[in-house]
Amino acid sequence: MMTLTINIERLLHELDLLALITDCPPIQDRPLPGTTQAVTRIVFTPRDLEARAWLKELVLAAGFTVREDAVGNTFLRWEGTDAGLGAVGTGSHTDAIPYAGMYDGTVGVLGGLEAMRSLKEAGFVPKRAIETLMLTSEEPTRFGIGCIGSRLLGGVIDPEAADRMLDRLPETDASAPTGLTLADVRQAAGFHGSLAGVKLPIGHYHAWVELHIEQGPLLEREGIELGIVTNIAAPSSYRYTVEGFGGHAGALLMPDRRDALCAAAEMILSVERHARAANANSGGVDTVATIGMVGVYPGAVNSVPSRVTLILDLRDTDVARRDGVLSAFHADIAEIEQRRGVKVQEEIVNADAPAKSSEHIVETVETICKAEGVSYKKMVSRAYHDSSFIAVVAPTAMLFIPSRAGVSHKPDEYSTPESIAVGTRMLALALAKLANE
Amino acid sequence: MMTLTINIERLLHELDLLALITDCPPIQDRPLPGTTQAVTRIVFTPRDLEARAWLKELVLAAGFTVREDAVGNTFLRWEGTDAGLGAVGTGSHTDAIPYAGMYDGTVGVLGGLEAMRSLKEAGFVPKRAIETLMLTSEEPTRFGIGCIGSRLLGGVIDPEAADRMLDRLPETDASAPTGLTLADVRQAAGFHGSLAGVKLPIGHYHAWVELHIEQGPLLEREGIELGIVTNIAAPSSYRYTVEGFGGHAGALLMPDRRDALCAAAEMILSVERHARAANANSGGVDTVATIGMVGVYPGAVNSVPSRVTLILDLRDTDVARRDGVLSAFHADIAEIEQRRGVKVQEEIVNADAPAKSSEHIVETVETICKAEGVSYKKMVSRAYHDSSFIAVVAPTAMLFIPSRAGVSHKPDEYSTPESIAVGTRMLALALAKLANE
Repeated sequence: MMTLTINIERLLHELDLLALITDCPPIQDRPLPGTTQAVTRIVFTPRDLEARAWLKELVLAAGFTVREDAVGNTFLRWEGTDAGLGAVGTGSHTDAIPYAGMYDGTVGVLGGLEAMRSLKEAGFVPKRAIETLMLTSEEPTRFGIGCIGSRLLGGVIDPEAADRMLDRLPETDASAPTGLTLADVRQAAGFHGSLAGVKLPIGHYHAWVELHIEQGPLLEREGIELGIVTNIAAPSSYRYTVEGFGGHAGALLMPDRRDALCAAAEMILSVERHARAANANSGGVDTVATIGMVGVYPGAVNSVPSRVTLILDLRDTDVARRDGVLSAFHADIAEIEQRRGVKVQEEIVNADAPAKSSEHIVETVETICKAEGVSYKKMVSRAYHDSSFIAVVAPTAMLFIPSRAGVSHKPDEYSTPESIAVGTRMLALALAKLANE
Repeated sequence: MMTLTINIERLLHELDLLALITDCPPIQDRPLPGTTQAVTRIVFTPRDLEARAWLKELVLAAGFTVREDAVGNTFLRWEGTDAGLGAVGTGSHTDAIPYAGMYDGTVGVLGGLEAMRSLKEAGFVPKRAIETLMLTSEEPTRFGIGCIGSRLLGGVIDPEAADRMLDRLPETDASAPTGLTLADVRQAAGFHGSLAGVKLPIGHYHAWVELHIEQGPLLEREGIELGIVTNIAAPSSYRYTVEGFGGHAGALLMPDRRDALCAAAEMILSVERHARAANANSGGVDTVATIGMVGVYPGAVNSVPSRVTLILDLRDTDVARRDGVLSAFHADIAEIEQRRGVKVQEEIVNADAPAKSSEHIVETVETICKAEGVSYKKMVSRAYHDSSFIAVVAPTAMLFIPSRAGVSHKPDEYSTPESIAVGTRMLALALAKLANE
């Protein structure tokens, strides 16, 4: 195995610079290790475009090439000596939900770039091309569905339907579209051409490995340096519209009310209860249900809510158990509709399958960890990732590094320099090994 | 009693014109009687300033004078023959919550103006001055508290505290201030000077009568033309901040959650339950509790809510019963905090006393109704009004006209031309009678 040094100072500095491209107020000084930057960087906003431009400069300076597809997926490519072979890929995303942290996704993009640079500086010559991808809109903030770039690469979303998706850049009402579509927004951002051309042919990637923070507490708690992901949980999300009857908060008397928010409150508690029951019944913790967005119409102190929108995120490692929670929730909704005189509509935003990692890639990484004396465990990813969809067209695996206290999607999300260095080094060695197969 | 004709066509036309000054899409044709316009006209927004300018032109054209105070309360004045006597006042508001109707408040301002014009055209000469007021921000949309103009006139809010109130022009988070204060916003709108000068001296008004739509179903249901308000229910509102613990919707497992939204859902259902119980215990319907605004932070599909803000509107004709509901709610909040590991903070936005009408004015209106053959009933106002606060510095009463189906604060709020004409005529006759006392 080759000797390889990662330039961790360069990588940390770039993570800092990227974090300052944010719609949150920047922290000017970061006096202590572990002081982190709040990041809001929603796809195709000015901050996202700024981050893309900054990344491309970095890549060109490192001597790699850049290609962008019609949805803005950005391929940082290092050509191999044998142009006839499928490439080895890595990558992740740089978009961030409102008031998120600075490591989710970014470690996989800048870590991928650093892996390529370190290998190049170490004199490594790859037989297969190596690519780092910056994937568009892993986060569902703007269009209601996550992993838009990787879904298109994997061909698991209809390109025309994708182009018609409504822009829901967060405003007062969680379900209120801006009137624009993905087609409008991506073209305004400079990404033209048909989305049908985004799908990757089988064979484009010989192998794909994504580096990511764990976003859970297990690795830190157990003192393990690296997680090798064997399965990714099946995610789904649903939009609910509760229609009641509004009116003046003083004059509409309690017996006459069909308050959409009170009905929605019962729904919020119902799905929480059923997810907890699914865990209790299975003796596990694999079912998670979250309502993270609520829109109240008309949204005034002195108006009884006539309409409420909720978005449910429901995940499980077992699709049948996930469907069971949804069925129990549906039964409660029917009862709430009946008792409260409201109407509830459900719209499926996405309901995806779980993904299974390539045994060959998992074994390759295990072998490297053993040779390098890096502690690892095989684990399930409960968060879904771009790799869920790349997995449809390529053998994939993921590498996790520890997240402080398991915190993610919050400004205090943090991974240590040591963890980032180990993860990036294992990624680089895996890419090198796979590129010479 | 004098002969008096109201120019109802002129008044209806002006109500239509004012309704078109809205941040909602205008309806160009109104083919059927009862087709109404959705109105959003939040205080000190461009639409509100446009409405104010339009109203002033109308008033000057009618030969009355205009005075504006430091908070933008606008006095349309018809001088009387005896300058030494207190005036007779009427008026209401023209601001409107998001997607409201076109009659709430506006009937009292344009109806007041029409009453003055009709009396003048009929050759009436008042001994006391007659004033119609357009009062600033009766709706709490922007600063979280309603009746700002009339509270200052009545001296029931500290002028310096009022100037420090935070602008909360509706955005994603129901509690997120824009960073501006009332002082900033009113001065930017052109209203300068100290708010301390707004308070009216006792005696400024000999009597005050406000014309308003009922915003409830009773008059229509009982086929009665006019309501004479004897009491106004005691309003209160409270802002709650629920602090839980956020994280990634996939990775933060159910046993580790302290979800602020699930806690808030229990609070929503708790206060609803206690309001219904208070009605059941009293055998009445006078307790009403509403949560009309919810803010969820960070507000992303795949983030567990770490903070939720709720605003509660709680009203009763009986202050002790209202306080009882609040106490029961507090006990539930303490239990929810304990069980779910969240912290809930309460901030009192306002907690006002009920207002009682002047018996003399109520009797004056009753006498006029009997003489004119207009059916009336004495009633309680469950919505609060500017008159609640004018009542602190002047003898007051209110006149209600029927609201179709009791609907208010919604675009289909409607009162018939006949109802508006009767209400305006009774108002004019009452103003004339009181002005010559």
